[in-house]
Amino acid sequence: MDEEAVNRPLVLVHRPPNFHFPFRHRLATQFNLFDPFDSPDSTRSSLLCRHAHNIRVLLCVDPTPVSSDLLSLLLALELIVGSTVGVDHINLPKCRRRGITVTNAGVAFSEDVADLAVGLLIDVLRKISASDASFEPPPGLKPLGGKRVGMGKIGSEVVKRLEAFGCIISYNSRRKKSAIPFPYYPDVYELVVNSDVLVVCCALTEETHHIINKDVMTALGKEGVIINVGRGALIDEKEMVKLLVCGEIGGVGLDVFENEPHVPKELFQLDNVVLSPHCAVATPECFDALEELIVFNLKAFFANKPLWSVVNLE
Amino acid sequence: MDEEAVNRPLVLVHRPPNFHFPFRHRLATQFNLFDPFDSPDSTRSSLLCRHAHNIRVLLCVDPTPVSSDLLSLLLALELIVGSTVGVDHINLPKCRRRGITVTNAGVAFSEDVADLAVGLLIDVLRKISASDASFEPPPGLKPLGGKRVGMGKIGSEVVKRLEAFGCIISYNSRRKKSAIPFPYYPDVYELVVNSDVLVVCCALTEETHHIINKDVMTALGKEGVIINVGRGALIDEKEMVKLLVCGEIGGVGLDVFENEPHVPKELFQLDNVVLSPHCAVATPECFDALEELIVFNLKAFFANKPLWSVVNLE
Repeated sequence: MDEEAVNRPLVLVHRPPNFHFPFRHRLATQFNLFDPFDSPDSTRSSLLCRHAHNIRVLLCVDPTPVSSDLLSLLLALELIVGSTVGVDHINLPKCRRRGITVTNAGVAFSEDVADLAVGLLIDVLRKISASDASFEPPPGLKPLGGKRVGMGKIGSEVVKRLEAFGCIISYNSRRKKSAIPFPYYPDVYELVVNSDVLVVCCALTEETHHIINKDVMTALGKEGVIINVGRGALIDEKEMVKLLVCGEIGGVGLDVFENEPHVPKELFQLDNVVLSPHCAVATPECFDALEELIVFNLKAFFANKPLWSVVNLE
Repeated sequence: MDEEAVNRPLVLVHRPPNFHFPFRHRLATQFNLFDPFDSPDSTRSSLLCRHAHNIRVLLCVDPTPVSSDLLSLLLALELIVGSTVGVDHINLPKCRRRGITVTNAGVAFSEDVADLAVGLLIDVLRKISASDASFEPPPGLKPLGGKRVGMGKIGSEVVKRLEAFGCIISYNSRRKKSAIPFPYYPDVYELVVNSDVLVVCCALTEETHHIINKDVMTALGKEGVIINVGRGALIDEKEMVKLLVCGEIGGVGLDVFENEPHVPKELFQLDNVVLSPHCAVATPECFDALEELIVFNLKAFFANKPLWSVVNLE
């Protein structure tokens, strides 16, 4: 490492072993990236221990788990810059206790996720993938117009799009949001009773784990459609598969699964199921926006300036 | 036929031999439907000739050809009530000369067609059908936001939806429309030079046959995407297939084909091609709207009242 590089602010790169993020080289021109996976297996732990006391910032690439043990090692840690929207892979209670700030991908991904959510919904209702595969006119097509769409936590970009299709929006969230002009249901069960389509786009927390359970899915009904672009474990996947197989729900469009990369094999056999391999945020434009956000937050931190997309740990 | 039925206004049903439209029984309670296919082959022509002079109204089910010969037989014909948006299957010059009014499906299908057009576009850009079939993360995903979308004739329902995705709209049409607040290009070539995506949703006429030719497609470029929910022959399909195979255009989403039901076999093998078997308008809600429109026009005609969705034959 040259002298100039050593003088750059130190950032610990925390990533899956085989994943290289696209803008690493550009980050390296501005920060001193310390990536344990650059070193051989045998020296990795000792190297991390030796530098741990200097590490104030951790860049978490992909949803790489940030465990209690790792946090215990990094006693000088002040900031975790996440590269995902969901931060369920980070031990948030410990961050809160230690006063560690966590930022996420914020709005960098919102538009791409919303595009895919709407694409999956049109596909389920209009059976586009099924038609594309079989080229048979599919029975039972359904229009988007007039569909009552409920959201588990409001996805403002999804709402913006679906309103243009004539859908009727309502939402569930922990709290009613005064800025949002749609009917609010404090209980997700009440939401689905009043919806034809449920778009799941909230964070996975202890509170939201399996929030879409058997009762909620049954209440959505035989014609009901579920789109999930949040996290797999928001839905009780085992129950969902059973209900789909029995025809107790109308269809699903899924970009996320409970035990990725595992996907229940029954899902591949159903025409009213559209699957996407967790790739809502995979366009180059998305990564550009993420790079901009990450560079902004790293620079802002070392310059003692306010950060973007800080996760509320309360 | 009972006496009451005979007193109802006479309507000639012109349909494909094996196609029964869903609301025929309800129409039959209000009109005296004369359907030559109700009679055996041997008597059909003579029956039609015998009643021809009494037929003022023809209900054209599906795009069943209304030829010059048929029009010559129906000398009392005043109105053709179409059940499709496109009326390229009707000999329009002869209707114009004879002063026969033609109505089409008008806006009954607009929303469903627009939904499918947007669904096909999201699918091509985000490779949903390809992912659903292979469950492999697809390379080269593209966002909708910022895409410059050109329309061959403005599809106002398509525009309404795509604006919500952050797309930038412009259009081509025979004439600039003062009510449409988007850039107008009098020439389709100029339109595509300024577009990333071309949505083809105009009527097929002599003037628009192969309007999307090799030059236009080449000008759209290697990243360009074409969606066709109009009629197959608006595009030079043979050239389109060649350009797709060579990678000279980025992708297509097609609900219509030049020689239906034939679809060029090359199209089934390309991941950047999403196919739909001419089923843009197949939801029950769509047929309800069509039934309402047809009943309205038949009643209005026999009551000497103004019609909806009259096709401009000039």
